[in-house]
Amino acid sequence: MSGSFDTERHPGVSAEPPAEETRGFVFNHSMLRVKDPAVSLDFYTRVFGMRVLRKLDFPEMKFSLYFLARDVADAPEDVGERTAWTFSQRGILELTHNWGTESDPEFKYHDGNAQPQGFGHICFSVPDLDAAVAWFDSHGVVYVKRPEQGKMKDVAFIKDPDGYWIEIVEPGRLKQLGR
Amino acid sequence: MSGSFDTERHPGVSAEPPAEETRGFVFNHSMLRVKDPAVSLDFYTRVFGMRVLRKLDFPEMKFSLYFLARDVADAPEDVGERTAWTFSQRGILELTHNWGTESDPEFKYHDGNAQPQGFGHICFSVPDLDAAVAWFDSHGVVYVKRPEQGKMKDVAFIKDPDGYWIEIVEPGRLKQLGR
Repeated sequence: MSGSFDTERHPGVSAEPPAEETRGFVFNHSMLRVKDPAVSLDFYTRVFGMRVLRKLDFPEMKFSLYFLARDVADAPEDVGERTAWTFSQRGILELTHNWGTESDPEFKYHDGNAQPQGFGHICFSVPDLDAAVAWFDSHGVVYVKRPEQGKMKDVAFIKDPDGYWIEIVEPGRLKQLGR
Repeated sequence: MSGSFDTERHPGVSAEPPAEETRGFVFNHSMLRVKDPAVSLDFYTRVFGMRVLRKLDFPEMKFSLYFLARDVADAPEDVGERTAWTFSQRGILELTHNWGTESDPEFKYHDGNAQPQGFGHICFSVPDLDAAVAWFDSHGVVYVKRPEQGKMKDVAFIKDPDGYWIEIVEPGRLKQLGR
């Protein structure tokens, strides 16, 4: 379990990672546009236990950004420091609300899995997939695929309120995946 | 700088986060489909210093998945253990390659910012935005917006090989953002 494995080489992979030039780079967040932040915040805080680190408003451009994470214990209290801290973390979820979309009954965002395709999904791993499925069921969560359906057993896909797919996996069950 | 701040409350935010029921949930990854993995892996390893933790092949369904991260020092050597470890981390980038797209000159994925909109971007934070911009320039990276352009100064957007937007920020410069 030491960290000495030679990272995987595949066509295109740079043999010499630019350690010096990219020192401190952090894959900070992924951004999804949401129709109604009240609905999305309810979903991500109530079902996934995420918290809002910062909401940033841009009245001139009529949008607001919400930055969410589960691990917030080390977040500074000072608002400016917390903004900087938020941007220094790994694995933040950013939700963008363009003002007014929530009151347009026809308005809908594109999930990236219908045509035209691009973005696919976000993923949460959970310590116990069966318990997580029971938890989702108790909240009436909509499934794309339950774990027992389809070819990839032990993997579930649910939908967030905008229809974005969320993959749910239990790491310990996936050791043989793709082998 | 203690972690005692009361996380932000906004309409929809659950007052009582479900600590027990969501214990161990991890926002593990975001998935983007890519046309040519050799081109994308070159970009993400050479320009961003990411490494491939695991490539998973699904010959029956004719696709492969690549899981990338920058922090790989603690990854186990054993392949099955490494797969499980990969799915237990925060902030992994998953690239999906549907076999054959790389040899179709007309093929192109949708970036989510043109219509129909949905997914917006991924973001890397960097310790020094000016140095990062010089680094990107030395690699001929394509910009959506350089830091000095547009309304949001100190924020850059570049494109990955499929045209997905990557936001580049320096956390320390953003303390006043959205205030």
